[in-house]
Amino acid sequence: MRRTISGFSNPTVKYLRSLRDKKHRRREGKFLAEGLRLLTDARESGILPDMLVMAEGRDPHPLVDALEGAVIAAGGEVIETTPDILAKITGKDNPQAVAGVFGEFDTSLAALDRAAAPIWLVAQALRDPGNLGTMLRTGDAVGAGGLILIDDCADPFSVEAVRASMGAIFTQRVAQASWQEFLPWLRGGPGQLVAASLRDAQPYRGAPYAAPCFILVGNESRGLPEEYEMACDLRVTMPMRGRADSLNAAVAGAVLAYQVVDSLEHAGTGF
Amino acid sequence: MRRTISGFSNPTVKYLRSLRDKKHRRREGKFLAEGLRLLTDARESGILPDMLVMAEGRDPHPLVDALEGAVIAAGGEVIETTPDILAKITGKDNPQAVAGVFGEFDTSLAALDRAAAPIWLVAQALRDPGNLGTMLRTGDAVGAGGLILIDDCADPFSVEAVRASMGAIFTQRVAQASWQEFLPWLRGGPGQLVAASLRDAQPYRGAPYAAPCFILVGNESRGLPEEYEMACDLRVTMPMRGRADSLNAAVAGAVLAYQVVDSLEHAGTGF
Repeated sequence: MRRTISGFSNPTVKYLRSLRDKKHRRREGKFLAEGLRLLTDARESGILPDMLVMAEGRDPHPLVDALEGAVIAAGGEVIETTPDILAKITGKDNPQAVAGVFGEFDTSLAALDRAAAPIWLVAQALRDPGNLGTMLRTGDAVGAGGLILIDDCADPFSVEAVRASMGAIFTQRVAQASWQEFLPWLRGGPGQLVAASLRDAQPYRGAPYAAPCFILVGNESRGLPEEYEMACDLRVTMPMRGRADSLNAAVAGAVLAYQVVDSLEHAGTGF
Repeated sequence: MRRTISGFSNPTVKYLRSLRDKKHRRREGKFLAEGLRLLTDARESGILPDMLVMAEGRDPHPLVDALEGAVIAAGGEVIETTPDILAKITGKDNPQAVAGVFGEFDTSLAALDRAAAPIWLVAQALRDPGNLGTMLRTGDAVGAGGLILIDDCADPFSVEAVRASMGAIFTQRVAQASWQEFLPWLRGGPGQLVAASLRDAQPYRGAPYAAPCFILVGNESRGLPEEYEMACDLRVTMPMRGRADSLNAAVAGAVLAYQVVDSLEHAGTGF
């Protein structure tokens, strides 16, 4: 279905704007993704928006046409609106912008297939949506299966996290669970839990990583609770040569993930 | 000198607030750093604020006392104010907060001693102050000498960059230069320029890194200009197993920096 919207007070405009707010996202079970690149990544991953919003009078673009065709063919809705209204929805000035409304994914642990990938990233109380999106992006790059969010993390469906993921929100699985839910789930199957830690840790190079390897990073300012670190199968430490004794959480996760990728490859685990 | 300020309209309050703005920082040659941890890192690195601002009626804290004593002994100014005014200055609600005004450092290339460290990070057109601060923090962790900012980067003295650096703004050297200034400076002495690249690149593990190694990362959305990549001594590529062909700039720099640290160590360059 196609519609044209020309008024700021249109209920659909209000609905789209409301998706910038977590409470409304939860109620609707929907989230907003912006930009042609992100929406094309989604389409190429087989995920289409329920609703595609585009500016009137835009320059023709084959990727926009492909997106529009796919949404219509799937029974979705295509909305054309003024560049001003689109800018209001997306919070950007670029009149080329497109935005899409997607259904939130199932984020239960039960929906994860741990055998699907040799590496999974796990973040505990990660508060910064940019860090969260960056971890999704890193997960995509290292061939991780997805990101498991433990305890009270930023919302993976926020506009900031989706943007920072550079499309990885559509390629990585995302799960949300408390520690009390996560640990029994993990121990219910194969899986090595590894934390970057200073407690009773071994050098991160040469440590005996094993797939599926779950790489756990902690909160940006407090790190991991001691109890969580001690529940890990492996605690590893990266050299710290400066005054600080820590790295940004997303950076630590990435450095460790690349080491695990390399170790598993050389161990010939066939991945 | 000690002073108490109790009015929002006090010129010192206006001055402190103005340092959130780049134009005012440049004019004054000063920047603002917030939080006891950051200011303590600065003090332990031998750097004291010209002006220390603290909330009245705060709980006693030995690190605050140490800071206050050091600033007074160095002839600096200590200002006590209400929690409300301090919150207004720092943009935070925490009445424990302290803030300091520091002189901006010399950021000329000429002030760098390339022999001082085996690794230097170099960022081109890095626009996000959080990424910039994260790179400083990573540089501190890997034992880099500092961060060289090429072309039009975010301001390293912004409150956001200083905060994300977690104190590394005080331990890492920072230089700012155009590419036209940087390249002749680099070629005027020993130094290997390495970029993460997809063009004519070799695997980042096993590449022949040599100290002093300058690790170049590009702009968050555009990457490095081809001309810059081709001017590098070494182009290396990290495995990309997902849909995306890139990492967050600060993440890519960190993964590469840790690889260089490890390679130089094993090559026995004595660092």
